[in-house]
Amino acid sequence: MPRYAFRLDYLGAPFNGWQRQDGQPSVQQSVEEALARLEPAEPRLAAAGRTDTGVHATGQVAHADLARDWAPERLMEAVNHHLKPLPVAITACARVPEDFHARFSAIERRYTFRLVARRAPVVQDRGLVWQVRHRLDLGAMQEASRALIGTHDFTTFRASLCQAKSPVKSLDEIRIEEHPYPAGQEFRIHLRARSFLHNQVRSIVGTLERIGAGAWPPGRMAEALEARDRAACGPVCPPQGLTLTGVGYPEDPFAA
Amino acid sequence: MPRYAFRLDYLGAPFNGWQRQDGQPSVQQSVEEALARLEPAEPRLAAAGRTDTGVHATGQVAHADLARDWAPERLMEAVNHHLKPLPVAITACARVPEDFHARFSAIERRYTFRLVARRAPVVQDRGLVWQVRHRLDLGAMQEASRALIGTHDFTTFRASLCQAKSPVKSLDEIRIEEHPYPAGQEFRIHLRARSFLHNQVRSIVGTLERIGAGAWPPGRMAEALEARDRAACGPVCPPQGLTLTGVGYPEDPFAA
Repeated sequence: MPRYAFRLDYLGAPFNGWQRQDGQPSVQQSVEEALARLEPAEPRLAAAGRTDTGVHATGQVAHADLARDWAPERLMEAVNHHLKPLPVAITACARVPEDFHARFSAIERRYTFRLVARRAPVVQDRGLVWQVRHRLDLGAMQEASRALIGTHDFTTFRASLCQAKSPVKSLDEIRIEEHPYPAGQEFRIHLRARSFLHNQVRSIVGTLERIGAGAWPPGRMAEALEARDRAACGPVCPPQGLTLTGVGYPEDPFAA
Repeated sequence: MPRYAFRLDYLGAPFNGWQRQDGQPSVQQSVEEALARLEPAEPRLAAAGRTDTGVHATGQVAHADLARDWAPERLMEAVNHHLKPLPVAITACARVPEDFHARFSAIERRYTFRLVARRAPVVQDRGLVWQVRHRLDLGAMQEASRALIGTHDFTTFRASLCQAKSPVKSLDEIRIEEHPYPAGQEFRIHLRARSFLHNQVRSIVGTLERIGAGAWPPGRMAEALEARDRAACGPVCPPQGLTLTGVGYPEDPFAA
């Protein structure tokens, strides 16, 4: 059976996350059902990142083995047709070797978190950002974030139900940019690592927000990391600001 | 009665435009009803730009005369409270002199149109952009747009039901930027003028799209303008890519 890789774009709000669960809508199930309209049996998808409820993607990658030989461009069009009107779309599709695995072949995941600070309720980006009502200090958040770069025991920033074997991870990049926003501030926090622990990004962003607000000094980030204690973490922030923007492989399956 | 100016942010989709109409939801009515919860009688609002059905705003300006003396910050908070959960918010509020008029004192309106070109359906920005499925040429659109700068008879780019006394308007700026967009292209078209004719921006963008697609040569824009004939215009594009981003006054009412 030929193997196909898909790049996916979706909104998190209507789904209980990526992963198929009995009786609850998931992105995985939606795409599998769209594929089932085209194939003799419903294919199973494996994804690079099992995004949580409410988390968006612009660059999720998944693969499936199909019964038929498809021209990738035609397959993409057909799946997108059957996904309507759900906020999920295939943005790239490629035939890949049988040893390609969307999850196990991945060597990098990239996430972006959008955080908006303004008093008036957010209107244009409702559901796509986390809003706080007080000003935030970019410099303090940037200073604090530097302590996280490199290989560390991230126990402080890990959900209690995280299933990873080890809390040790390498964070390759954390970059915080401030963008103009009407009557407020927007911060985009870009993170890049081979892999992340469960709730790692939202735990880091929740801690950064406390530092940006001036409630905690920038040095508290390094202390929290060294504590290796969940209790040292800031409040885990809500999911709707978070987007999986890309997944890296030794060779880009969609280059061509 | 003290006069207050408001800066407003709203999504176009749920409303039949800014202006109050019997039996149809409008932004004006929503804000007037929120003000009525605070005041003895329902105030009337006058806005700088009467945006059409489906058009968004991040910088609309309106004014009203209120019976009570309000601290502007408190008034903003109270109106926003009563606007929930509608996608409308006051982002700035100021006490202004009695001769300030949101519409007649305005000396500049700024609009931005977002146009996305990609094959896969747009997901993240659904309802905030106009999507086409073919690639567009930035240089051709930029070249064509230059013919529009300055004072011209814009009859070609004016809705037949436009109520302006004269079709002669001065377009001070039209700037087209290309931005990165997942699996596609995004173009932001920024326009600035003292005032616009009805459907002028959407008529210009519809014509630019034909030129960007290569269906028409860039020189067709100058020919269409000179024709002073509605039939020479490209198809008027849909409203959801358009946002009123700001209004200029001799003195910024919200500067403090």
